[in-house]
Amino acid sequence: MTKPVQLSEIESFDHEVDVLVVGHGCAGAAAAIEARRAGASVILLERYSGSGGSSAQSGGELYLGGGTALQKACGFSDDDADNMFAYLSKALGPHADLEKIRLYCDGSVELFEWFRACGVEFVESLYDAPTWMPPTKDGLMWLGENAWPYNEIARPVPRGHRPAATGFGGHAVMAALSATCDSLGAETHTDTKALSLILDGDRVVGVTARKFGNDVSYRAKAVVLTTGGFVDNEQMLADHAPVLLGHGKVSDGGDDGSGIEMGMAIGAQTRRMGFVEAAYTALPAMVCRGMLVNGQGNRFINEDVYPGLFSHAALHQPGPCWVILDEAGFDDVPPADLWGVRPSYAAETLAELEADLGLPPGSLEATVAAYNRHATESGTDPLYHKDAKWIRPLEGPWAAVDPRISFGGGDAKGTGFSGFTLGGLATDLDGQVLSIGGGVVPGLYAAGRASSSMHGEGYISGTSLGDGTFFGRRAGVHAARAVQDAGA
Amino acid sequence: MTKPVQLSEIESFDHEVDVLVVGHGCAGAAAAIEARRAGASVILLERYSGSGGSSAQSGGELYLGGGTALQKACGFSDDDADNMFAYLSKALGPHADLEKIRLYCDGSVELFEWFRACGVEFVESLYDAPTWMPPTKDGLMWLGENAWPYNEIARPVPRGHRPAATGFGGHAVMAALSATCDSLGAETHTDTKALSLILDGDRVVGVTARKFGNDVSYRAKAVVLTTGGFVDNEQMLADHAPVLLGHGKVSDGGDDGSGIEMGMAIGAQTRRMGFVEAAYTALPAMVCRGMLVNGQGNRFINEDVYPGLFSHAALHQPGPCWVILDEAGFDDVPPADLWGVRPSYAAETLAELEADLGLPPGSLEATVAAYNRHATESGTDPLYHKDAKWIRPLEGPWAAVDPRISFGGGDAKGTGFSGFTLGGLATDLDGQVLSIGGGVVPGLYAAGRASSSMHGEGYISGTSLGDGTFFGRRAGVHAARAVQDAGA
Repeated sequence: MTKPVQLSEIESFDHEVDVLVVGHGCAGAAAAIEARRAGASVILLERYSGSGGSSAQSGGELYLGGGTALQKACGFSDDDADNMFAYLSKALGPHADLEKIRLYCDGSVELFEWFRACGVEFVESLYDAPTWMPPTKDGLMWLGENAWPYNEIARPVPRGHRPAATGFGGHAVMAALSATCDSLGAETHTDTKALSLILDGDRVVGVTARKFGNDVSYRAKAVVLTTGGFVDNEQMLADHAPVLLGHGKVSDGGDDGSGIEMGMAIGAQTRRMGFVEAAYTALPAMVCRGMLVNGQGNRFINEDVYPGLFSHAALHQPGPCWVILDEAGFDDVPPADLWGVRPSYAAETLAELEADLGLPPGSLEATVAAYNRHATESGTDPLYHKDAKWIRPLEGPWAAVDPRISFGGGDAKGTGFSGFTLGGLATDLDGQVLSIGGGVVPGLYAAGRASSSMHGEGYISGTSLGDGTFFGRRAGVHAARAVQDAGA
Repeated sequence: MTKPVQLSEIESFDHEVDVLVVGHGCAGAAAAIEARRAGASVILLERYSGSGGSSAQSGGELYLGGGTALQKACGFSDDDADNMFAYLSKALGPHADLEKIRLYCDGSVELFEWFRACGVEFVESLYDAPTWMPPTKDGLMWLGENAWPYNEIARPVPRGHRPAATGFGGHAVMAALSATCDSLGAETHTDTKALSLILDGDRVVGVTARKFGNDVSYRAKAVVLTTGGFVDNEQMLADHAPVLLGHGKVSDGGDDGSGIEMGMAIGAQTRRMGFVEAAYTALPAMVCRGMLVNGQGNRFINEDVYPGLFSHAALHQPGPCWVILDEAGFDDVPPADLWGVRPSYAAETLAELEADLGLPPGSLEATVAAYNRHATESGTDPLYHKDAKWIRPLEGPWAAVDPRISFGGGDAKGTGFSGFTLGGLATDLDGQVLSIGGGVVPGLYAAGRASSSMHGEGYISGTSLGDGTFFGRRAGVHAARAVQDAGA
């Protein structure tokens, strides 16, 4: 298992196809659609009994911009690819892949139209408040573009594109993409788990798989690995991304890194295997009205930043972190944004609250005093640059919310974090997998979280469905053309 | 280059040997010594014109304990392997390799005697002050064992063992180990750069190399990769440890990751490729008398911790960081510990200093006020637990030192950080390289910074020469025995 099989070891193949796509999530569907449109025969392998993968269980946000029809319909006509690039290259950094982000931004308007042509519907209205996920069907939302320092780096324009679904919308995106695969004649073989790449010399010429306990082999002229990341593989996490050990997993349970390992086993390059996305169970609508402090009672970021970024910062703080609110702030949170979260502690004074939370005596007092001093004197936050609209002097009584308690309340206390991995196989701009020592692995492609794509150490919602489909499409096109060139 | 060569492609070999060691630093020397003692013929390949590698250019500290003769001679008779393990497993963490640390601690007294038997000399006295490197020949020093939280986790005992050299002592360690290699009949082939592993099926059976522009081939029954880390390989840094991009490099210039890539090219597992050591140009003797603050004017760690650990914390802070001292603190630093460092800024008030350093108004004032409040009330540091002996209320006039300026002064301003990589090939306890998909790569070993060893996200001086020799020795023994078993 995982180690490659030599072509000479295969007596006969059960299936033959031009382009074999391993994994039917968003990246796989996009690769299949474009390979089929380019004239190649296509089979998708899916380990579970239906298509969709982790993509279908996601929020469904698509990070798109540069002047999409939806942005314009919502009154934002001043975005362009350069402005989008300025934001995304910072927000996904440090160490983001600028070449991939550039290409992605240049193709973003077209990608939006591609989604619509595949049947994804968008409601032409903006949800204009801080949140992880709007409680409405609004098609557009802010994803941190209007928070410091990004509002000084690029013109602030919302780019969170959402399918017409309340709450989690990934299923709506995947229903449309999978239907498009079907209509184009890309076959999906479900309950089929790919195990190993088949090699003819250096070239990948197929995969072996298991279906209901039986071996099954596929001969292909090109193989596209879209098997997802490795958050469900404890050994790979320990080896490559131990920061996520013990935390919740954002996946459908099948992100076991199998595609990444199949590539590594034949000397494929990997990239940024330690980079992760992590979301923290703190409510944006709450923290922007108060503060987020670490286990030493210090603030560490502007609380109105994209919540994925305050989450990532919290992951690296001495914990546990706390949401601190005064009574007026708590009362100001719109009921629809409360998500069942209640104060874990309440106290008349900060000294009492420090004792309740186990914070060093005087630490929270000093933090609030500095915050209030600037709120009073200038109505600003010179330490972390939270927007002035959220700034006012805080005064007791006080409340603290423990983000280790899940949204919806209850008593169960976890770590508060859940995430997934961003590192994977190194690919070029057409999804070709790079080889250790130079060049590409002939016949092998990767996209989505099985590959390392645009992300540096930062993460913004919608960039996984975004880059998975964008670079999945490019891989599908390139693979189909390579097949035709070889056959010509 | 880098990609493996098949045995069938080699017409004839230039050299044949039982155990081929690639890289003559501390790990390679240790492997060669023990393989030779176990009866194997041994050749060491060294890319440069003489042995020593990055080990010879290092400080020469050896992290040893558990009751060494040197510890006892200096009056520390209460250490043992469990106590050493308690410290090291925390200080090298989070995510340290507990199994390797356990073995290392259990073998530490013996490893010290091994160094002495190889001819490394130690002066039986303690240097008892915070420093990166003592200005004396004292053989023992503290490496953070007496700082919070480690002083509560284990009985504080110094374990920094230093060869009898003033300043950098790595050359003294390597001179002894290389002489031992020579005396045992392990040949060193200098100016010989290994390029590729030679494979017979799955088994490693040699390497190809270049010497003065000519191809040269080595047939071996076992290959031990001790080629060092990859801090000198910009592409590998960008792919795997971008946090070090742009910073100084702690190496002899040859840590190009070639051994790691040779392994990856044949499907060897890697581990923790993103983990790094980073040292910051801030003087321990200075920061413990004042404070270390980040770009928001906040402290972030107890300043008397092992300097490698405050360095690592600083690397992840919003920068730039500053050393803040009052006049009394500056005057209290022993002249021998000043290392030519002078204040970058001086000011009568903290408000002036904030303006000079570009810190948010009031930020440093709030930090110092909290520090002084506890210094006055209780003489303690409840936020970060710096030892009480360093705590007193600070008062102006003030000085700030910019760690981006090198020790020794001058005007050149870099990043202040220099480091090396800790990730590499995944190995078992005998140095056998693990294969993607399970099992080991037959005939292949790795040790030193070419492998992932004991380290998690933390680093303590002396653990590289320490684990390089410890696991290098084990690899040499195992390789020699495997050769004998195969020949029997």
